[in-house]
Amino acid sequence: MKITMRLGKRSYDIIVKEGSLGRIGQLANLARRVLVVSDTGVPEEYIRTVLAQCSAGVPVILQQGEGAKSLETFGTLLNVMYEHGFTRADTVLALGGGVVGDVAGFAASAYMRGIRFINCPTTTLAQIDSSVGGKTAVNLGGAKNVAGAFYQPSLVVADTDTLKTLTRRHFVNGLAEAVKAGLLLDETLFTRFEQENAEECITDIIARSIAAKQSVVERDEREKGLRAILNFGHTIGHAIESCEGLGGLYHGECVALGMLPMIEQPAVRRRVRSVYKKLGLPTQIRYDGDKIMEFIRHDKKQCADGSFAVVRLAQIGTSRIDKLSADQLRAMIREGIR
Amino acid sequence: MKITMRLGKRSYDIIVKEGSLGRIGQLANLARRVLVVSDTGVPEEYIRTVLAQCSAGVPVILQQGEGAKSLETFGTLLNVMYEHGFTRADTVLALGGGVVGDVAGFAASAYMRGIRFINCPTTTLAQIDSSVGGKTAVNLGGAKNVAGAFYQPSLVVADTDTLKTLTRRHFVNGLAEAVKAGLLLDETLFTRFEQENAEECITDIIARSIAAKQSVVERDEREKGLRAILNFGHTIGHAIESCEGLGGLYHGECVALGMLPMIEQPAVRRRVRSVYKKLGLPTQIRYDGDKIMEFIRHDKKQCADGSFAVVRLAQIGTSRIDKLSADQLRAMIREGIR
Repeated sequence: MKITMRLGKRSYDIIVKEGSLGRIGQLANLARRVLVVSDTGVPEEYIRTVLAQCSAGVPVILQQGEGAKSLETFGTLLNVMYEHGFTRADTVLALGGGVVGDVAGFAASAYMRGIRFINCPTTTLAQIDSSVGGKTAVNLGGAKNVAGAFYQPSLVVADTDTLKTLTRRHFVNGLAEAVKAGLLLDETLFTRFEQENAEECITDIIARSIAAKQSVVERDEREKGLRAILNFGHTIGHAIESCEGLGGLYHGECVALGMLPMIEQPAVRRRVRSVYKKLGLPTQIRYDGDKIMEFIRHDKKQCADGSFAVVRLAQIGTSRIDKLSADQLRAMIREGIR
Repeated sequence: MKITMRLGKRSYDIIVKEGSLGRIGQLANLARRVLVVSDTGVPEEYIRTVLAQCSAGVPVILQQGEGAKSLETFGTLLNVMYEHGFTRADTVLALGGGVVGDVAGFAASAYMRGIRFINCPTTTLAQIDSSVGGKTAVNLGGAKNVAGAFYQPSLVVADTDTLKTLTRRHFVNGLAEAVKAGLLLDETLFTRFEQENAEECITDIIARSIAAKQSVVERDEREKGLRAILNFGHTIGHAIESCEGLGGLYHGECVALGMLPMIEQPAVRRRVRSVYKKLGLPTQIRYDGDKIMEFIRHDKKQCADGSFAVVRLAQIGTSRIDKLSADQLRAMIREGIR
């Protein structure tokens, strides 16, 4: 399936298809220097498959984990490109999850002020969410995505066969963003989670989630307004994720938790919890509310007037951005999510 | 004088005026967190003048020199903003020469994927050239501007009073870019250098140089075509500048030298040399041609087909981009510039 993100000169195609990594050389011009950025969590077979189709591939394999999403890695990628004589005509290709795509995309945006970037996400989360929309970033210290760029890829290739080698927990983790897309924008997508087995229709779920996100990004590429609804679940979710010592939850799991207090109708909340249970996503957590507040203060969601913009779901398909005072937000998160 | 750079949503004003730093608080909203980036070469008086107009100014004073234009400084600026709780509503203000503006602008482009950037250039070179047009960058190792972003400021304030505290050599250094603007785009500007004393009409020279550059940037913000003519003198100039051990020439001096072999008419070349002599810019240099070629290979001007795009001046006001083979370029630079 091909989805086209229509952003004028920055438009690009998103290919969602089983086995597409095996023919990426036909989908993109790889007859140039290609920095192939991956990590130790990605099966070597995929890396070999891509490199075999590059005429001058330069592999860089990062250590798996959020720690690689740093200014240090950013500098390493830039230096490797420079040492290999990369010019503006060359390409960065990310092959992996969100960490790989985010840091490789940021490096592509900065090298000679921007060279071609191809994103090949290999996790459910990256295919559904992080590879689409042009947000690239690194973390600073413990805080997520503090530095980065809006930089659109020139092509996204989501080979859904790669999802078969994920652990069940990793596979499900990414589905939280698909549930989010359904709740915000596509009730039919949400009800599929209630009525069907996600594994059996995963290519459709991914394509449908991307299409939902695409409709928002096309209208607000740089998050001046509408796009902020995609932060649904992320205010508290990011904070849980950033807060060390909470048991190492994954990004999607944190977003799943973070959406729950923002769902206004108890009936919808019950349906969402049922979907989480069916998939194996967490439905509750206890945490130190003061620590969570401290992280939220540092996140990008605090407004100039000191209030916090959060996305609330009035009903499925209807969301709005509310400004909460620090006290209101504190009251909402005080007791954990139960 | 006010010049408006018209780039749609990214449009901004450039104020060229004596004493404008003293009223920057009226020109821009500084009632927010403002990272004031400067360096040890900038008189403290200017820094105090700006800070006094900020409600929450955070000064960062870099060590003067090209060494500060690094990924390390970039990281430091991002970390200082994060530690001081900067949000998307806050501002970066650069107060200094091109190094300060380039690295501060790059940090502004990346912090939370972009916050407001005000550039207050205090050198002739920065006022004429680097503060206008949205190119930000850092160096990698010895190579100039390898990483950066196209990121337009929201305001440029060029207080021409600050030029009075520059050494004569620094003052003249920046005029090379004004001579360049005249040769490429504005013969009247060029003839002023022949007929008048630059110091006496410096505000006009700066405004006229900016206007020439503006006309090009408006038509090609991201250097897809036309804007490349502004690289006139920079292919060899950058290489001379990057090449250590050549006696520490300044950027403008290197560009002045780099323009000479690219001027096709001997009569024009003679006129340009006369202007250089009048101003005190260098007119000749000896160097190791192999070393120069090696630097040019790494620069952003090498094309995908291995050729080198250089800007040549057919006559005053008429330039073109030529593709030279490595052999042609080597022949051109072989013997130094005499």
